[in-house]
Amino acid sequence: MKKIKVGIAGLGRLGKVHAENLAFKIPNAELTAACSIMPAELDYAKEVLGVEDVYSDYREMLAKADIDAVAIVTTSGEHCWQIEAALDAGKHVFSDKPLGVNVEECRIAEKAVERHPELAFFLGFMRRFDPSYAYAKKKIEEGAIGTPYMVKATGIDPEALVDGAIRFAATSGGIFIDMAIHDIDLMRWFLGSDPVEVYATGSTFKHPEFREAGDDETGVAMYKCENGAVGFVHVGRTAPHGYHVETEIIGTEGSIRVSPVPAKNLCMIYNNQGVVQECVSGFPERFAESYRLEMEDFINCVQNGVKPEVTVYDGTKSTQIGFATTEAYRQGGIVKIEY
Amino acid sequence: MKKIKVGIAGLGRLGKVHAENLAFKIPNAELTAACSIMPAELDYAKEVLGVEDVYSDYREMLAKADIDAVAIVTTSGEHCWQIEAALDAGKHVFSDKPLGVNVEECRIAEKAVERHPELAFFLGFMRRFDPSYAYAKKKIEEGAIGTPYMVKATGIDPEALVDGAIRFAATSGGIFIDMAIHDIDLMRWFLGSDPVEVYATGSTFKHPEFREAGDDETGVAMYKCENGAVGFVHVGRTAPHGYHVETEIIGTEGSIRVSPVPAKNLCMIYNNQGVVQECVSGFPERFAESYRLEMEDFINCVQNGVKPEVTVYDGTKSTQIGFATTEAYRQGGIVKIEY
Amino acid sequence: MKKIKVGIAGLGRLGKVHAENLAFKIPNAELTAACSIMPAELDYAKEVLGVEDVYSDYREMLAKADIDAVAIVTTSGEHCWQIEAALDAGKHVFSDKPLGVNVEECRIAEKAVERHPELAFFLGFMRRFDPSYAYAKKKIEEGAIGTPYMVKATGIDPEALVDGAIRFAATSGGIFIDMAIHDIDLMRWFLGSDPVEVYATGSTFKHPEFREAGDDETGVAMYKCENGAVGFVHVGRTAPHGYHVETEIIGTEGSIRVSPVPAKNLCMIYNNQGVVQECVSGFPERFAESYRLEMEDFINCVQNGVKPEVTVYDGTKSTQIGFATTEAYRQGGIVKIEY
Amino acid sequence: MKKIKVGIAGLGRLGKVHAENLAFKIPNAELTAACSIMPAELDYAKEVLGVEDVYSDYREMLAKADIDAVAIVTTSGEHCWQIEAALDAGKHVFSDKPLGVNVEECRIAEKAVERHPELAFFLGFMRRFDPSYAYAKKKIEEGAIGTPYMVKATGIDPEALVDGAIRFAATSGGIFIDMAIHDIDLMRWFLGSDPVEVYATGSTFKHPEFREAGDDETGVAMYKCENGAVGFVHVGRTAPHGYHVETEIIGTEGSIRVSPVPAKNLCMIYNNQGVVQECVSGFPERFAESYRLEMEDFINCVQNGVKPEVTVYDGTKSTQIGFATTEAYRQGGIVKIEY
Repeated sequence: MKKIKVGIAGLGRLGKVHAENLAFKIPNAELTAACSIMPAELDYAKEVLGVEDVYSDYREMLAKADIDAVAIVTTSGEHCWQIEAALDAGKHVFSDKPLGVNVEECRIAEKAVERHPELAFFLGFMRRFDPSYAYAKKKIEEGAIGTPYMVKATGIDPEALVDGAIRFAATSGGIFIDMAIHDIDLMRWFLGSDPVEVYATGSTFKHPEFREAGDDETGVAMYKCENGAVGFVHVGRTAPHGYHVETEIIGTEGSIRVSPVPAKNLCMIYNNQGVVQECVSGFPERFAESYRLEMEDFINCVQNGVKPEVTVYDGTKSTQIGFATTEAYRQGGIVKIEY
Repeated sequence: MKKIKVGIAGLGRLGKVHAENLAFKIPNAELTAACSIMPAELDYAKEVLGVEDVYSDYREMLAKADIDAVAIVTTSGEHCWQIEAALDAGKHVFSDKPLGVNVEECRIAEKAVERHPELAFFLGFMRRFDPSYAYAKKKIEEGAIGTPYMVKATGIDPEALVDGAIRFAATSGGIFIDMAIHDIDLMRWFLGSDPVEVYATGSTFKHPEFREAGDDETGVAMYKCENGAVGFVHVGRTAPHGYHVETEIIGTEGSIRVSPVPAKNLCMIYNNQGVVQECVSGFPERFAESYRLEMEDFINCVQNGVKPEVTVYDGTKSTQIGFATTEAYRQGGIVKIEY
Repeated sequence: MKKIKVGIAGLGRLGKVHAENLAFKIPNAELTAACSIMPAELDYAKEVLGVEDVYSDYREMLAKADIDAVAIVTTSGEHCWQIEAALDAGKHVFSDKPLGVNVEECRIAEKAVERHPELAFFLGFMRRFDPSYAYAKKKIEEGAIGTPYMVKATGIDPEALVDGAIRFAATSGGIFIDMAIHDIDLMRWFLGSDPVEVYATGSTFKHPEFREAGDDETGVAMYKCENGAVGFVHVGRTAPHGYHVETEIIGTEGSIRVSPVPAKNLCMIYNNQGVVQECVSGFPERFAESYRLEMEDFINCVQNGVKPEVTVYDGTKSTQIGFATTEAYRQGGIVKIEY
Repeated sequence: MKKIKVGIAGLGRLGKVHAENLAFKIPNAELTAACSIMPAELDYAKEVLGVEDVYSDYREMLAKADIDAVAIVTTSGEHCWQIEAALDAGKHVFSDKPLGVNVEECRIAEKAVERHPELAFFLGFMRRFDPSYAYAKKKIEEGAIGTPYMVKATGIDPEALVDGAIRFAATSGGIFIDMAIHDIDLMRWFLGSDPVEVYATGSTFKHPEFREAGDDETGVAMYKCENGAVGFVHVGRTAPHGYHVETEIIGTEGSIRVSPVPAKNLCMIYNNQGVVQECVSGFPERFAESYRLEMEDFINCVQNGVKPEVTVYDGTKSTQIGFATTEAYRQGGIVKIEY
């Protein structure tokens, strides 16, 4: 079976994760080209990944490299034009989330995808590929909890990493844009319905720097969905115990909680504190497997001519909802969401 | 040490719980009188409780019985006038929650309490006396989680008991009045701040009877507090696993979850379903100990001339918040709360 | 209904627990007399319990006090003769465990019980009354785990209390006699079969004082039962997290673990250690409810002329097994157990 | 960096796991040859693994294939001579556990390893590479539980797979040889001491076929170690909830339990049973990651000229202990273990 040849754009922290998965852990993929504006990242591509065909110009990679597909792991503002350029160059596209940083950009990506129905477009909502989230979805589809009518989603970065968040507070787009996009996607996915109204607020009790930068360290939003279901999203920066991503899906016949205790592993420690479950330190630890599995799915989609489950429209909608949430948060009121 | 003599008003399901605690489980209390409009309840008082001095008229009990205090466990609409009458008769008062069914009534109770600073007035927010809730409060006061800035409260009655809830749906005052008062009290208690704004909604996916009665089977509300803290309350009628009362208090240095798994006991069962934790069946099972402990505290307050921690104003406020939440829910909008 | 009048013998730590239950928490019991060789304990009886009829001589209490029953909570070496004397004086008897400190004594108690079939004899294996243990038993009787074929029992005292244990190491009778009797009783109760062979050993890694006193800080024993079932008992003195009493009952269709995490309450604390469950501090905290429930059952047995479930023979057997275990431990070999 | 070329011997269920890891998931390994006596397995090697250089004769692969190392995943009885042949042919060796089926064979492997200090010999005790077990070991080395003095190990295959176990009961070597080898290795690893005495027994309450085949469905053994520590091993065939592998390591300052609830994933399901944690179905699910990590470590050892942590002597000792346990079980007595 022919391996899918992939060129990667962006080799930052997450770019490296994807690159190593493509290079070493996905049998039917081959990482044949890499592009970065950082020379050190191209050295890394050669030395660690064994990729000789490297570029500092994205369009040049599209034009010259021997690739079937691109994996876009650049900064969010670059995603949409890079998606368009790749599709127009006849390449299948994997793009990291978010789709774009505003709805106009997302529409450009949508049109490019529509122009190229022969190509796969994959948007990296990797949480859907986490074995626990995927299992929750499967159980729900099998009817284990009846009809889902509420999602409570929590995503709190570890206090241990708060300095970086403070540094980027002024330019992050606000906590909901920066942090809630995965939770919003999960909410839509599990409820099978889109939010039509949002109310949001925020608070800062620990690090005034967030407030000074016009943001908050904690954001909370409540959604009413088209079908009457309810969503609740809580994002934050200051979890003392580690990286806390938890989702509860409540249905008419039961509910499922994914990761109420964000356990590091299966060890329980009995010591003079009591019984202690240590927790995961951050997203690379929590979602390592998800990144591999989503890329594996992308490659399989390309190879088998199958359309990925997440569509470009899911990307636009999650961006729209993120902006509506931010607007509600800033106004201190209710915002209606139209698509 | 002289025992405190108590007359009880109301011997329904919860009245019996309080009566048996007073009669048998609180060393420094003596149940000496009982009042009910149901003859069968007075028979019960004589036969089971050994209380000979029974009344069908509340004011008559106040006038004639040899009592230091009354325990009011009648229907909510009777609480305020009975409180006033008892205080004016020189009796210490224990009243079950809610204080009253509207704010005007609550003001009457407030004035009566103010007229009688020499008497103890105790409002039965028994969850505060649950060993786990009390422990959470103690830990928080000791600084275990820094400054609390969010409370997520959940209170869902068991699906097994939904028929009764359906029957009373039209007259219950709505799900927030009927179910959220304890959660509202806990939110205020843990956050140390009062909500000034509420947004609320509801949903019905399982039992359309609730919607037909102008109510919902699930209610969700989000609160902004005076100090910037955030509250989230979720109440419902359809928990398949049992009686689910859970509260999460999140602070700058940690968080505490009270009863995320509403365990029936300390047994874990490993069977062909997996590992199963059975859950409590309802409030009498979950809060049996709390009912005893709150009454013990009331009696101790009376005996030692100490003021109970919960005040009549806490009662008024929780009622106000309940009404504001109901208003927000009915309007589908935001309601400001003023005290 | 006539209250059962009880005289208590022994008002040490556990004696006070029983006395307060009898005096204040059991409706159909009345504590009318108390006996102790410690004057301070008799003062306590008068002042706290309100018992005026006190004795320093046990036989005198039997002869003179207005009592239907006695509760024996004296040191273990006194149990058997006090049981015999009480029964011969026509009193129902509650005795704390163990039945006796050797088998000969137990036989005396057995004979006294046999002489008085009209009287209730109750042996205080209170763990059987713990709501979780009782629930486990009920589930097993309902068939929830099929046929039980193995019990793993653990009982470890908190390191926080080790000084007391060290002080009494030389005179405690050895760790199995001192600590394993409850576990042995539970093993027999859950398996429905008696052990016929035991292998035992011990270890001391933390407090050499135990070894110096001819004992060990940890004892481990394995039992083969008559019906082929297997028991495993692990007792110790050095649990850093608190008081650890855990029992696993394994059957052909499932298993039940009672208290694998000896949770203090329903609070889970998320802090910089991870997710922490604090643990119970000792037996008074863990088994407070059991002590009350067993006494309630004793009083009900007396009142209703019902025979208690635990028999005097259960007491003898657990003592025999404790001695056989100690012998196996001391010999470093296998000991056959005959009854 | 030069990739390590590996030839695999044996492509059964576990062989396929190792082969796919070598072929697709370990960057610095290359699977270049395969050997099997089953033609279908060689077809699989060509079609799925892309390995063209296949053999039906093991010695021929050693002689002709372009390989640096062999991975031996054949039946247990073949391990030792294949280890010897490979080492004498100058190949690094990975061998699945157990080292051999008797001690004489193990000695042959030991001598071969001693003859070739320049070659890596790796014995596949993959549990040591499980992230949770490895974490437990790391914590213990860091002093988290003080000095370990007891290990309680449990390994129970799922009832769902019992038919296969029944089929092989007569030829498996007995339950301790067949199932306890990993638990024995973990016990030695965590305690840092070897057992010098064992007492063992077994029971059969569900499937009499085991007894009829001269074996038992459950085996239990207790060990005294050279340093005074104690081990307890419980193996079985009939876990209704799934595949139960649990290990508790108890030390002077704390204890660690690895996998007391053998959770399938991070989903907790709240339904009409209560709160349910589904469990892993078998070793391929539980230890998938361990198999990859141990092979990664083997390849790294080869590439970097580092000696693997597990030695050939560990293999001999675990085999000796397995036989001593079986002897104790069959005799119904105590067996001393000498090395």
